Amino acid sequence: MQFKVNSKELEKVISKVFPAVPTRTPVQILENFLFILEDGVLTIYGTDLEMSLKSSISVVSDGDFEGVVPARLFYETIRSLGDTSLVINIEERNRMRVVWDKGEVTISYIDKSEFPEVPSFPTESEPDSPLFSFSISGLDLKYAIDKTSFAVSKEEIRPAMMGTLFEFSGEGLRFVATDGHRLVNLLYQNAATENEGNFIVAGNVTSILQRVLDEREVKVYFSKSHVSFILNDMELIARLISERYPDYKAVIPLENEYTLMVSPKELLSSVKRMMLFTTGKMRKIKLTLSPDKILLSAEDIDLGASGKEEVASSYDGEPMEIGFNSSYLSEVLSHLTDNDEIHFKLHTPNKAVTIYPKEQKENWELVMLLMPVRLNN
Amino acid sequence: MQFKVNSKELEKVISKVFPAVPTRTPVQILENFLFILEDGVLTIYGTDLEMSLKSSISVVSDGDFEGVVPARLFYETIRSLGDTSLVINIEERNRMRVVWDKGEVTISYIDKSEFPEVPSFPTESEPDSPLFSFSISGLDLKYAIDKTSFAVSKEEIRPAMMGTLFEFSGEGLRFVATDGHRLVNLLYQNAATENEGNFIVAGNVTSILQRVLDEREVKVYFSKSHVSFILNDMELIARLISERYPDYKAVIPLENEYTLMVSPKELLSSVKRMMLFTTGKMRKIKLTLSPDKILLSAEDIDLGASGKEEVASSYDGEPMEIGFNSSYLSEVLSHLTDNDEIHFKLHTPNKAVTIYPKEQKENWELVMLLMPVRLNN
Repeated sequence: MQFKVNSKELEKVISKVFPAVPTRTPVQILENFLFILEDGVLTIYGTDLEMSLKSSISVVSDGDFEGVVPARLFYETIRSLGDTSLVINIEERNRMRVVWDKGEVTISYIDKSEFPEVPSFPTESEPDSPLFSFSISGLDLKYAIDKTSFAVSKEEIRPAMMGTLFEFSGEGLRFVATDGHRLVNLLYQNAATENEGNFIVAGNVTSILQRVLDEREVKVYFSKSHVSFILNDMELIARLISERYPDYKAVIPLENEYTLMVSPKELLSSVKRMMLFTTGKMRKIKLTLSPDKILLSAEDIDLGASGKEEVASSYDGEPMEIGFNSSYLSEVLSHLTDNDEIHFKLHTPNKAVTIYPKEQKENWELVMLLMPVRLNN
Repeated sequence: MQFKVNSKELEKVISKVFPAVPTRTPVQILENFLFILEDGVLTIYGTDLEMSLKSSISVVSDGDFEGVVPARLFYETIRSLGDTSLVINIEERNRMRVVWDKGEVTISYIDKSEFPEVPSFPTESEPDSPLFSFSISGLDLKYAIDKTSFAVSKEEIRPAMMGTLFEFSGEGLRFVATDGHRLVNLLYQNAATENEGNFIVAGNVTSILQRVLDEREVKVYFSKSHVSFILNDMELIARLISERYPDYKAVIPLENEYTLMVSPKELLSSVKRMMLFTTGKMRKIKLTLSPDKILLSAEDIDLGASGKEEVASSYDGEPMEIGFNSSYLSEVLSHLTDNDEIHFKLHTPNKAVTIYPKEQKENWELVMLLMPVRLNN
């Protein structure tokens, strides 16, 4: 049999599925795409077993086909062809021959039976049917992921924290990410639900979404075990992290009575400079707070180097010296630079600090939390 | 003592010297800049012992200074400051304190005596005085390096080939680079000299030049042992590779009587695609030559994949099948894509092929040479 397709359009479809294909995996079969061509629709799947991506394209075909095709080789070949008409012939001895005006390539494919089962989302009739579903603009979902995903933990010892919490309630949909050192808590007020429920979406899933989301609407379905993100022409299905998310509410301090107001851009610029003069894994930086300025200071004992710098600010509390890991502080600040002013809420130098934009974005409520580090003076 | 300087202007000077500072070196002292401030001129040196870069800037100073300063820390600090006025104080216990309006940093420096001797260029009165000198536009020198340096060998077993040959003669200045698989021979006719002489400039030197050259004039001096490139506000001095360059003339075939004319862009595009279907270290690709087209073909035996493709061309010789390492072929072609048409000169499938632009650039004469690989059919 054979089917016909434009190389540029085929490339678009493949490029959407390719991010799910693992690069270095002991399960070599996963380095392939699964092709299923049925009734003139070619669907291409990629999976790393935890997650799958699929996308479809209409083709002109004289029959159906199922096969497993080397992902990178196929992707790079199609990409190198620019914009041309392709005839793809399925031939004997599992050979796929891709023909264009000036040349052709032949690629061996494998039988579909060799490919592992692709994670699929339960249908409404199954016991594990969707519990929650909602629509959201791709840009809003991207905003939520951009603001939270940097705080997701990379440490496998606490698997629950290796994902972003999606928490449904009457307030809206809350996104929470933390690695124990900092926490992001972002409420999207437009998605209030009657029932409550919470789900953890793995960090590699949100980082793929970050790359593919655009202004188009996304449909999201959660079942007890899986999540499905349906974009215009592709679907991402992933296994949820089936762990209990830590009680993030317990760590958000309520008694932080002092307020420090500062420009995140100016503070970030100073933190980045002072970071050069920190030492060790902790990369400690000291903030000395007074009514109208922050004095930042740092010291690299190994190099015998030190720095200090002032940033204009407004502070209504007791004079305070407070230490932070400068990498964490700069990462938090760099996710707040879309604000002209942010407010730090503080209590004492050993209590978590909360950070808010002075003006919340409409329909959103963002708070970040950062643990200080002990100063030894 | 103290001196004053603008951070942006200091950054420009440092950025020119920084490329000479080695990143991972067992000789830790080389990770520093040498500062010499004399009569209001601050000269900054960086060296890896084989090569040195220096650049100077006028400063407002109340005394002289010599010291060795951590290169990366100093560079990144100054770079992070944007455009501001600096006062740099040299204080007791080898401390350099850099002060700007909002802050300050203190960096420990080391005595000059700890720094190795910086390669310097012999003056006219010394026995090893300059043998050759010439001026060239920075863009012309950059053109010569861009065309040749990719072919320089990275293998330490043949040190002479780890640099570019600069050969002076009545014809002009010839640049030659080869790694034994391909060779570039580029004559610059504007620099003819009465005397003959040849010098090998190391690959890391030409790659630094590639980055810093612009349209401004360059003065070049060769002594028996060293080369000096003087750009407007910086000088690069390097030890020459004191080996005998292989007899490149002996490998350039003269009897190549067949001509193949082709667009380098079209051939490159096809080679890049067929490269995906090559296998092993050799990455072999076959070119089947006929009067009006080249048939490229390749096979990846491990993957069971293969490709073939035609490129329009014009050929006046016997039908021929000739094999190339596709990486080498694509690299040669990618350095010829500024030409609409190139000519391959061939004799037999096991003899070196020469490649010329159809139209040589004025004052330049370029020829590349590529060794074929054996086809086993």
